[in-house]
Amino acid sequence: MIKPRTPPGVMELLPREQIAFQQMLDTIRHTYEAFGFLPVETPVFELSDVLLTKTGGETERQVYFAQSTGALEKSREEGAASVPELALRFDLTVPLARYVAEHEHDLAFPFRRYQIQRVYRGERAQRGRFREFYQCDIDVIGKDALSPRYDAEIPAVINTVFERLAIGDFTIQFNHRKLLRGFFEGLGIQGERQMLVLRELDKLDKRGEDAVRATLMGGEFGLDAATADRLLAFSRVRSVSHDDALQKLAALGEGTPLFNQGRDALVATLVQLKAMGIPESRYAINLSIARGLDYYTGIVYETTLDAHPQIGSICSGGRYDDLASHYTKSKLPGVGISIGLTRLFYQLREAGLVDVAASNVDVLVALLDDAGFADALALSQTLRGRGLRVETQMEARKIAKQFQYADRAGIRFVALRGEGERSDGTVTLKDLRSGEQETLPLEAAADWLTGRLGGSAP
Amino acid sequence: MIKPRTPPGVMELLPREQIAFQQMLDTIRHTYEAFGFLPVETPVFELSDVLLTKTGGETERQVYFAQSTGALEKSREEGAASVPELALRFDLTVPLARYVAEHEHDLAFPFRRYQIQRVYRGERAQRGRFREFYQCDIDVIGKDALSPRYDAEIPAVINTVFERLAIGDFTIQFNHRKLLRGFFEGLGIQGERQMLVLRELDKLDKRGEDAVRATLMGGEFGLDAATADRLLAFSRVRSVSHDDALQKLAALGEGTPLFNQGRDALVATLVQLKAMGIPESRYAINLSIARGLDYYTGIVYETTLDAHPQIGSICSGGRYDDLASHYTKSKLPGVGISIGLTRLFYQLREAGLVDVAASNVDVLVALLDDAGFADALALSQTLRGRGLRVETQMEARKIAKQFQYADRAGIRFVALRGEGERSDGTVTLKDLRSGEQETLPLEAAADWLTGRLGGSAP
Repeated sequence: MIKPRTPPGVMELLPREQIAFQQMLDTIRHTYEAFGFLPVETPVFELSDVLLTKTGGETERQVYFAQSTGALEKSREEGAASVPELALRFDLTVPLARYVAEHEHDLAFPFRRYQIQRVYRGERAQRGRFREFYQCDIDVIGKDALSPRYDAEIPAVINTVFERLAIGDFTIQFNHRKLLRGFFEGLGIQGERQMLVLRELDKLDKRGEDAVRATLMGGEFGLDAATADRLLAFSRVRSVSHDDALQKLAALGEGTPLFNQGRDALVATLVQLKAMGIPESRYAINLSIARGLDYYTGIVYETTLDAHPQIGSICSGGRYDDLASHYTKSKLPGVGISIGLTRLFYQLREAGLVDVAASNVDVLVALLDDAGFADALALSQTLRGRGLRVETQMEARKIAKQFQYADRAGIRFVALRGEGERSDGTVTLKDLRSGEQETLPLEAAADWLTGRLGGSAP
Repeated sequence: MIKPRTPPGVMELLPREQIAFQQMLDTIRHTYEAFGFLPVETPVFELSDVLLTKTGGETERQVYFAQSTGALEKSREEGAASVPELALRFDLTVPLARYVAEHEHDLAFPFRRYQIQRVYRGERAQRGRFREFYQCDIDVIGKDALSPRYDAEIPAVINTVFERLAIGDFTIQFNHRKLLRGFFEGLGIQGERQMLVLRELDKLDKRGEDAVRATLMGGEFGLDAATADRLLAFSRVRSVSHDDALQKLAALGEGTPLFNQGRDALVATLVQLKAMGIPESRYAINLSIARGLDYYTGIVYETTLDAHPQIGSICSGGRYDDLASHYTKSKLPGVGISIGLTRLFYQLREAGLVDVAASNVDVLVALLDDAGFADALALSQTLRGRGLRVETQMEARKIAKQFQYADRAGIRFVALRGEGERSDGTVTLKDLRSGEQETLPLEAAADWLTGRLGGSAP
């Protein structure tokens, strides 16, 4: 006898939790589709030489390799320290780059794709860290060029996703890499040093302003007090409304050409968001956001739950200049975001914000006596024909037991036909939520159920 | 520069094909839900010692193992021929057994679960064989016992799935392992030999009746001519209607107690299918179906497309006595089926039966001039609010180009507002399928679109 258990670092859900998780996945997917994104799925494994062109040191050490028994035996015989042929995807960005480069001539650009799949990373085993987790990505990829207008469409998608997920108030915060780089240039901070300074500023929340200022003025950086203060002041800029964002950007004044480009781009994005009717409480500029240094080149986004800042960013991304330079000579600029749903679900559940009350079964058709079995089957089929999700009790049990079963399973409605109902062509319905009970003719009974379920039937 | 490419043995689809695939996945899932099945997802990797308790020789050789870079290096240093800690699931049945045993006390029985995920097998690389493929499974698991009535619910699910997939006429064929074993017993064929004879009978389609008869009467089996003929005659039994099935089962006469049990169970299943209103052209008995020897213990199912028998079974399964004997002392009988959707989709596409015509975008909002940009954004948001899936053109282009783009992308409707429409509050709509064009007030335009799209909006 083997003890049944899952490996560390994976999230496996009980059915009721899985239903809640699935509803979130569906909401995200349907929102992505509402904005005209097309589905893509890629294989879980990529060829190692294809997958590992873009990775840096740390990510590469986290990659999982896959080997069949045969390949494993062969590599052992050869005793070689060669890299196995197959590796599991560790994000959805590298597979997207490979996909777009591979199928470039079969795709229409701008190419709008969504991809919702699990990814794999050999993270240190730790509470809340996952070795397998869902990413829900959208990207718009241009060929040669991509209008900056797409930069503002992305927050509109984020807004609709989190509005529909209904997990509380949220703020989409953004910054612009050109504004950042231009600002550094203006202070005489160039090249490599920009990255080092940014890394320090990224630690503001953790280390506090005094510690960061001390580091910036210390041996490694040697900035003067005025420069350090300007950096810290810049990092503190956050808007509280649409007009405030415009004013704060204007108040930054003129800078290097790069700085001005970044500032004008943020203004254009703000104007477009307003035109799309995105409530202004939902977006803000936050000039401390950087999101790593080498990948993003334009706007960068983070999204936080207003009541749960400790969760950190629940949806991040940005604009990049060239998606797939390792695979194709074509220039493929793009903009995109990712939602790490496994981690988000975990955090929401920890915070008690996941509702696992409802089943995905709408109606339980009860069975009172064996003589009514064929009738219960027919009733179930009729209700399914009306779009309802129906479980049929296959064995007659006491009605109280069947109500209890439905209640525990989170099934809201029970439908039943005893001898009386069968002889006069009616159905008795019970709403376990309200306690309401009615006996109606068959067609009216189906209407009664679909009416009460509203849009929840598929 | 690395050539972008996928590993052999995987199926990667272009977006239009992916949409068609996704629609099939959704149809299967919604049908499973209509019958009250609950979703389960399990991690892609299981602990090797947990996964590999149940496998035989061939499957075990096909298993993929996963190792992070660290684990790989460690195993090399140790030079050990140990099995890696993690292995990828090769079906959804072993993960189900592990899941039910692990979460036994948190589940309600009979436990009805569906699971739609990819599985992994290191198959020989060959056209139409996949190393990664979707399985779409349902199972009903009882604790200690499970009513035989569930045996008939399963074909009702299969019927609804393939009716909704609309890929042509199909027949759900079934047999019963007790009938088979009882029949062999009656002929004096016992134990191990039953399996060997069954394997020969399984080759009837490939080798033909004469070759199989010769083998049965040859040295290995040494059956007499009368016994061989009875075996072949039994294997030929197939029904053409509900009544024919009942008559053919009756005509088998009495046999061993096991034989009679199997026959009576098939009769009960036939009666129940009729009560559920399943068209009788969709199901038949076929006494040649065996589906392997060690796992199934009761009814077994196969489903074939009437016009494409060469595709083989597209949905198979059956009843088993004990799901998880390796993991728990509880007895967990069950019944279930699996649809191998990757292979089915591949076969349908080869046969020209996959329709990749439609986009999942309902409407393209065109942009005629930059002055209309904010208006186009607002129009797009309004249509999204009505449940439509909308792509917005972000840059003004000649209208002919935009119609052409929508047509190539498979987007049926284009909505646009030039200066005229903007000044009088109307929208011009074009149906690219019918050529129809209308200019209507905004609200009426939204109705026009939703009316024509019918149920296709999410």
